[in-house]
Amino acid sequence: MKIIGIDPGSRITGYGIIRKEGNRLIHVDNGAIFTDAHKDFPLRLQRIYRGLTEIIENHAPDAMAVENIFFATNVQSALKLGQARGAAIVAGVNAGLPVYEYSALQVKQAVVGHGRAAKEQVQKMLKALLNLPEVAQEDASDALAVAVCHAHSVGLNTLRGKLK
Amino acid sequence: MKIIGIDPGSRITGYGIIRKEGNRLIHVDNGAIFTDAHKDFPLRLQRIYRGLTEIIENHAPDAMAVENIFFATNVQSALKLGQARGAAIVAGVNAGLPVYEYSALQVKQAVVGHGRAAKEQVQKMLKALLNLPEVAQEDASDALAVAVCHAHSVGLNTLRGKLK
Repeated sequence: MKIIGIDPGSRITGYGIIRKEGNRLIHVDNGAIFTDAHKDFPLRLQRIYRGLTEIIENHAPDAMAVENIFFATNVQSALKLGQARGAAIVAGVNAGLPVYEYSALQVKQAVVGHGRAAKEQVQKMLKALLNLPEVAQEDASDALAVAVCHAHSVGLNTLRGKLK
Repeated sequence: MKIIGIDPGSRITGYGIIRKEGNRLIHVDNGAIFTDAHKDFPLRLQRIYRGLTEIIENHAPDAMAVENIFFATNVQSALKLGQARGAAIVAGVNAGLPVYEYSALQVKQAVVGHGRAAKEQVQKMLKALLNLPEVAQEDASDALAVAVCHAHSVGLNTLRGKLK
């Protein structure tokens, strides 16, 4: 199965695509969509929507994973982040993908093994886990991390199903 | 010209459609899209996107107007509101509509004539202005108000253009 992880933001939206083959995780693609801060906000939201829609069409993933966000510096940044997140999620559901949400704690636990890992630890672990040539761009790295989290979660659910 | 005003919300998204003929404003339609609070949030965002897309297809407006929001009770509600707003705006830009944003102050000034009007005043004025049979549902009313604000603004811009 193929998973697209996303890390939405009004300036930069990271994405990361991995394939899960049995217990192996294989890196497929990662990158970031940049929006022009000089453009009207509605056009920036469209850029996120269209960019992700194109990436989903190219890679045809089976599921989308996104980190659940409960914190923001203030109401203003929460409103901006929320709108970017809304545009990104609608791109997923409109492409027919189930969208899964995971907490930052779940993501860190899945990648590093515990929930208090520093960002750099997560990035290094991802590089090793996915055999990346180099540490990915920050937002793309966060997107890969939540994709890995979903891959683990799918595995666990399958295992739980088998144990019943 | 036909204008769709929207008042996005994660539970209820109001919409109001008016037609501007010369200096006359004619009410076309208003209503609200309700999302199921028991459903996953991504599916609720899709409901907003699809609902608005259908309404836009039916009425073929020339522009979308939405109130600019700078306040929310807290970061949590700002994130939810932002996501709903993002889904609604993407529905507009994807349908090829220019999307205009107005502050609450501008909306009240356009409808009532001053910026400190109470909600009830705005609703009553809208009823009179658009010759509505009754006061519209709260969110639909807010949506009609921002549509009226855009209609006034278009008039002013045209006038300014002529004066130059």
